[in-house]
Amino acid sequence: MQAGKSSIKMEKGPVITSFGTVAGPKEGDGPLRNGIDKIETDSMLSKKNWEEAESQLQKEALGLAIQKGNLEIGSIRYLFAGDLLGQLIATSFGIADFNIPLFGLYGACSTMGESLMLAAMTVHAGYADRAAALASSHFASAEKQFRFPLGYGNQRPFSATWTVTGSGAVIVAKEGLFDKDGEASVSYARVAGVTPGRVVDIGCKDSMNMGAAMAPAAFDTIVRHFQDFDCGPEEYDKIITGDLGIIGQRILLDMLKQKGYPAEGKHMDCGLEIYARQTQDVHSGGSGCGCAAVTLGAYILPKLFAGNLRKVLFVPTGALLSTVSFNEGQSVPGIAHAVVLEHC
Amino acid sequence: MQAGKSSIKMEKGPVITSFGTVAGPKEGDGPLRNGIDKIETDSMLSKKNWEEAESQLQKEALGLAIQKGNLEIGSIRYLFAGDLLGQLIATSFGIADFNIPLFGLYGACSTMGESLMLAAMTVHAGYADRAAALASSHFASAEKQFRFPLGYGNQRPFSATWTVTGSGAVIVAKEGLFDKDGEASVSYARVAGVTPGRVVDIGCKDSMNMGAAMAPAAFDTIVRHFQDFDCGPEEYDKIITGDLGIIGQRILLDMLKQKGYPAEGKHMDCGLEIYARQTQDVHSGGSGCGCAAVTLGAYILPKLFAGNLRKVLFVPTGALLSTVSFNEGQSVPGIAHAVVLEHC
Repeated sequence: MQAGKSSIKMEKGPVITSFGTVAGPKEGDGPLRNGIDKIETDSMLSKKNWEEAESQLQKEALGLAIQKGNLEIGSIRYLFAGDLLGQLIATSFGIADFNIPLFGLYGACSTMGESLMLAAMTVHAGYADRAAALASSHFASAEKQFRFPLGYGNQRPFSATWTVTGSGAVIVAKEGLFDKDGEASVSYARVAGVTPGRVVDIGCKDSMNMGAAMAPAAFDTIVRHFQDFDCGPEEYDKIITGDLGIIGQRILLDMLKQKGYPAEGKHMDCGLEIYARQTQDVHSGGSGCGCAAVTLGAYILPKLFAGNLRKVLFVPTGALLSTVSFNEGQSVPGIAHAVVLEHC
Repeated sequence: MQAGKSSIKMEKGPVITSFGTVAGPKEGDGPLRNGIDKIETDSMLSKKNWEEAESQLQKEALGLAIQKGNLEIGSIRYLFAGDLLGQLIATSFGIADFNIPLFGLYGACSTMGESLMLAAMTVHAGYADRAAALASSHFASAEKQFRFPLGYGNQRPFSATWTVTGSGAVIVAKEGLFDKDGEASVSYARVAGVTPGRVVDIGCKDSMNMGAAMAPAAFDTIVRHFQDFDCGPEEYDKIITGDLGIIGQRILLDMLKQKGYPAEGKHMDCGLEIYARQTQDVHSGGSGCGCAAVTLGAYILPKLFAGNLRKVLFVPTGALLSTVSFNEGQSVPGIAHAVVLEHC
């Protein structure tokens, strides 16, 4: 199953049988509105604070994935989940009620890639018949965690991105299981391989330009993926990064072209899909764990299920910083995890 | 390989071939001093701040595990690592130079259990010949993250624990691999099974009594483990929790006894081993990811390698809180991950 230096190839890999997405009002006004399962009109989700609201997003997304798959909660053996907040509080409080064993993950905004990768590895190895992968972010809890109080109304540079308020959850199951259980869909998507990311630090110190910090990590993972699988951009209908935004996308495409992998036309970035960039005032695009997670469930998986996309490389991207490391003058390293998803 | 409702049994499971531990001066004055590979005399490790010092601990621990195993860095396929700091900055900056793909984990002080579990699952499934699991904590970076500035000199209640300054790293390898590679040891330890933890919230709101918050999670995992493997305390030489301290230990033993699993005499807590509690002013005991990680490498694994322990249940425990959740009045849920380690 080991492919090349650091990838895993899954022949007859596990299948994604259902998924759920929840997002906030701004995302509900965006281009993916028709694909999002539940659009909340109140960013607080009737909770006392932003963090509890984000926990509620995870709870609802996982609940929807389970419900849409016509499953019992107890049939999910393990959860792989994370968020952006210090000590993963959105996750800890969001999924506690499900009583499912949890592997808590932190991959910054790449967490949906990390969780999907580990859920697929776990199911493919036979450790579980079904596992769930999920991730969330919330604009307000992220601004509070990483930047300025919202009431301060600071100006954001054009290189900044807008953290998505949303969560996406995916059920990964052993092939064949969904038939006899009478799960909803007959066409579905399969995880065919993974390329876990490395910490890539090019010394970028601008926390308001995370696309630039993350693009080299996406490049590193995508190139290692091509090498490990002995392929190139032509193998995929789309190569989909998580939240590089307009600046990060330009950098990634330039780097790939220089390396001999021209991907113009093949590349898509979730951060450029989830908002109408020109009219929704998000500057460089969308970001956050929720960006890749919601776009996966609201756009990518429906197209894979329907066969409108045949094979994609899903590469959520993360910027590894905290306010502490940033204020101490550290750079912002990046990481990106790649998952091969195909229609079948 | 699925055992019971939520465990994994590994027949001929992967082996731990080498390990490395680094700790600070206080830990170096404690009872495990002779087992710790490297004792730093300067808590800052000649770095500019506590966070960089903690990163250095991880770097050194992993370096030692690789060196003691007589390995090339490139032979480690994946890293599973984490720490207590917001956004895992100790890990991101600590392991970047190794250029090994990283799965970033957050399980609070249970992270050594989570990382060891996932490394073992990954190797046992054939995804990697070798993977490394590591975790760290640092007294000063944790106090800064979770409590008061050190200079404030606040009084700690007797229920509080002392965060261990230290890191432990473990190399998990496919059986047989170490022979032909001429790795150092002939006797070693094997991972024979795992029971991943659930988030258990009994509503404890005292962040200065984390033993009480975590004991019910340890109880939940240990009982599920016994049920899944159809065994009891008699199966193990020791049942070893991560950092319950004196109060958490009492609660756990009482809960286990009530459930019909008397474990008095079988139970050991890393937090009660790493410091001389009476003379080192640590109140309830040691804590932090580094507590279980250092005790694993400085005490448990040497005894398993030598056959002085035949089979143990290693159960690192974590308290899932952040200053944000705590200040918002949330409780402190716990989580505990169990790994079966046996001499072979």
